Amino acid sequence: MSNPANLQLTQSGELRHFLTAEGLDRLMLERILDTADSFVVIGHQEVKKVPLLRGRTVVNLFFENSTRTRSTFELAAQRLSADVLTLDIKTSATSKGESLLDTLRNLRAMHSDMFVIRHGDSGAAHFIAQQVTPDVAIINAGDGRHAHPTQAMLDMLTIRRHKGKFEPLSVAIVGDIMHSRVARDQIHALKTLGCKDIRLVGPNTLMPNYIDSMGVSIHTDMNQGIDGVDVVIMLRLQTERMAAAFLPSAGEYFRLYGLTRQRLKQAKPDAIVMHPGPINRGIEIESAVADGPQSMILNQVGYGIAVRMAIMSMAMSGQIQQRQASASNPLSAEKRS
Amino acid sequence: MSNPANLQLTQSGELRHFLTAEGLDRLMLERILDTADSFVVIGHQEVKKVPLLRGRTVVNLFFENSTRTRSTFELAAQRLSADVLTLDIKTSATSKGESLLDTLRNLRAMHSDMFVIRHGDSGAAHFIAQQVTPDVAIINAGDGRHAHPTQAMLDMLTIRRHKGKFEPLSVAIVGDIMHSRVARDQIHALKTLGCKDIRLVGPNTLMPNYIDSMGVSIHTDMNQGIDGVDVVIMLRLQTERMAAAFLPSAGEYFRLYGLTRQRLKQAKPDAIVMHPGPINRGIEIESAVADGPQSMILNQVGYGIAVRMAIMSMAMSGQIQQRQASASNPLSAEKRS
Amino acid sequence: MSNPANLQLTQSGELRHFLTAEGLDRLMLERILDTADSFVVIGHQEVKKVPLLRGRTVVNLFFENSTRTRSTFELAAQRLSADVLTLDIKTSATSKGESLLDTLRNLRAMHSDMFVIRHGDSGAAHFIAQQVTPDVAIINAGDGRHAHPTQAMLDMLTIRRHKGKFEPLSVAIVGDIMHSRVARDQIHALKTLGCKDIRLVGPNTLMPNYIDSMGVSIHTDMNQGIDGVDVVIMLRLQTERMAAAFLPSAGEYFRLYGLTRQRLKQAKPDAIVMHPGPINRGIEIESAVADGPQSMILNQVGYGIAVRMAIMSMAMSGQIQQRQASASNPLSAEKRS
Repeated sequence: MSNPANLQLTQSGELRHFLTAEGLDRLMLERILDTADSFVVIGHQEVKKVPLLRGRTVVNLFFENSTRTRSTFELAAQRLSADVLTLDIKTSATSKGESLLDTLRNLRAMHSDMFVIRHGDSGAAHFIAQQVTPDVAIINAGDGRHAHPTQAMLDMLTIRRHKGKFEPLSVAIVGDIMHSRVARDQIHALKTLGCKDIRLVGPNTLMPNYIDSMGVSIHTDMNQGIDGVDVVIMLRLQTERMAAAFLPSAGEYFRLYGLTRQRLKQAKPDAIVMHPGPINRGIEIESAVADGPQSMILNQVGYGIAVRMAIMSMAMSGQIQQRQASASNPLSAEKRS
Repeated sequence: MSNPANLQLTQSGELRHFLTAEGLDRLMLERILDTADSFVVIGHQEVKKVPLLRGRTVVNLFFENSTRTRSTFELAAQRLSADVLTLDIKTSATSKGESLLDTLRNLRAMHSDMFVIRHGDSGAAHFIAQQVTPDVAIINAGDGRHAHPTQAMLDMLTIRRHKGKFEPLSVAIVGDIMHSRVARDQIHALKTLGCKDIRLVGPNTLMPNYIDSMGVSIHTDMNQGIDGVDVVIMLRLQTERMAAAFLPSAGEYFRLYGLTRQRLKQAKPDAIVMHPGPINRGIEIESAVADGPQSMILNQVGYGIAVRMAIMSMAMSGQIQQRQASASNPLSAEKRS
Repeated sequence: MSNPANLQLTQSGELRHFLTAEGLDRLMLERILDTADSFVVIGHQEVKKVPLLRGRTVVNLFFENSTRTRSTFELAAQRLSADVLTLDIKTSATSKGESLLDTLRNLRAMHSDMFVIRHGDSGAAHFIAQQVTPDVAIINAGDGRHAHPTQAMLDMLTIRRHKGKFEPLSVAIVGDIMHSRVARDQIHALKTLGCKDIRLVGPNTLMPNYIDSMGVSIHTDMNQGIDGVDVVIMLRLQTERMAAAFLPSAGEYFRLYGLTRQRLKQAKPDAIVMHPGPINRGIEIESAVADGPQSMILNQVGYGIAVRMAIMSMAMSGQIQQRQASASNPLSAEKRS
């Protein structure tokens, strides 16, 4: 996956796929956040609808189940006035033995404009954007352990709306860094946006190897890790990891890394607490914190729709420019028709 | 569940949730029927669509399956121009261990305007409206044995459109009163609308205890129960009740309480026959009656969409008023955003 | 099924159901193709939407699963601006014991304008149009082995757009003719549109008995069957047939009837290759052909949406005329309402 930025951008530098925050420059990330800000306003209006994607076809391709992510993408597409087709690929597609590539080519042939892809394999969205359907805007809705960049961007929007500039902030990311599909994108986005103090907090068994090179500090002690931070990002603990001997027990994990009111006092008094949801109350976070005044957890949900609307409309716009630029290219035109 | 009317109405007396017909006054029920009448007309137009809920998000939350009710609510929402998200909670939501309350809070955070809730537990919709999401309009699409008020209101619309005023009417409700989620709402609505002769007809084993206090007469003899009535409302027999020894057998039930052409002669010559569907032909009703000239069964289906459109648009309108009235209340505004 | 044309047309000769290509005259088939041509253009526009079915309710009734057909009908209905309700009847409808007829009557009573029906039994759509809901436009999306007429019409559109007039063409249909739900409709449509040289190619065990009377030539030798043809239509091989002893093995079938580059040289140099999808690579067709310059397989998918939009809008228009013509008929009006 060398040079993902080139794949995500048009020749004139517009977004045309959204696969990962990695490689996108600060200007692009800020444009996404600025656009999302305008959609946050729309979410509070009575008529939560803009005609930006009217007559466009968005296909949600969910190779693994995620009610929350699927719902927010469906609502985002509807509020952009797109036509939406949601396919649960496990149960429906290849039951007749069709290969994934043929399924994708067929969906493209239905004049689909955008695929929102959720897949268990790392790199799936990237592969599809590169090899299969470069002329359809691909939005990565989570691929394996690799990336979940719309989640990372909604986290950035949450931070910017509640903390302002990124430069002076200290941000702690707490939990199962190794198995998280979002931590990597969060780190890339935070660094690109200017954040200088990024701390990863968790047990050694859940720290990935690549992490040393990313310019972050690593903390196995929670109290030390969140000391004086402005932002605490809790990751969801996949409880099935404990069976695999990465973790001793839920109780032990909570004792060491659970975010309690008591422990939160280590952070700045006005620190905000984030979590991608769904939360495991009493395992990675105490209810009093999750529902408390510093929690941004429900705000994040609303911001998630705004960020997805922003990314979908920007990628659609870039994709159209790309198509128009290559309209004179005979290979890109419909075959003899 | 004391004082449900207060919960269902805004301070200025507008509908903002619709949980049960109980406690709503005659003026409100008639306003619902009047509004529904106007939507019946729309159902016969070529373009069956009005922009009343354009840009609003309606979430159908079905905790138990009901194709018919789900379909009518989906169509009603579409014809009001709403964006609709349908979630089958059994299969999708809590598979990651999220609690119901957290699911609801998340859906609200997506700027949903209305939840249509079908749940197996009595009081579920009421609980959600009161405790969880008072700022989202809640429509009860059936909760346990407690209520199914949109069904009751479409029955009222059917009676009013075909029989006019309620005061002079004799109405028989026949069948499994005890396990019916709609009988209770039908009785409340009929009484509120002025009906004076309400008769419950069925075996003693299927009569609930509360019924004595509701100002109705009880009949274990079918011929006597429907003698001279203007309206016969048949309830659906849950055949699984027979296994539980409430009933001897389907044949025996039909012999005693099945509505046949012969038996229907006991009612007035122009009596109408109603049934919520799906019908069990030959168990609670004879096909010749179900498909006969006095049957309103298919008319009820169309009225069901009109009534649901009326209730959804009225509750949405009341909910908006409520939100605007409390906009100065800092607790109801989005947290620090 | 005598006289299907009468059932499909209004008294003034407009389409009001679309059940089979059989019995429709050349003028009607050409009107469908002309209308579809105009929708092909829309598929290439940025806003792929026309308001022809705005406010209409289209119900997709899928009694057997078909992701591809369901998706194309959903997109076609959305692009015509219809409201769409998709019901998977296996899992949802008769779970409460309701009969199919009652389900259909209920859906009609919801003021549905059109049913798109996919059913495993031959004649299902025909039966529904004739007996159950003559006042709802019925579109046959595949019934048993009988017909799949929208697939046949998209094949005709593909041929006409890439080969022009039908009269001079030689067309080979290759594969499992007997079990194909589309071959029969293809033959009817090709003959009606003027094609004089129609060849059926496949093993004797997969040739149906009726075929002699249809004015086609039969070839068990593939090289001879496609010799000099302009169009090769490959049928999908249902691999489950091989277990039933109709076929020796996939390898043997491919050796005898698989379409390879080598074998395709028997056809005209500019012959086109068609396949309804999903393709079995290496069983009925070689990848080099499926993905090669003569393949129309992906073009067919886009044409499929255009053809379905054409047929849906024409049937809707005819159905409305029919209703208006019979509006004075008291039997067709809503009962006493």
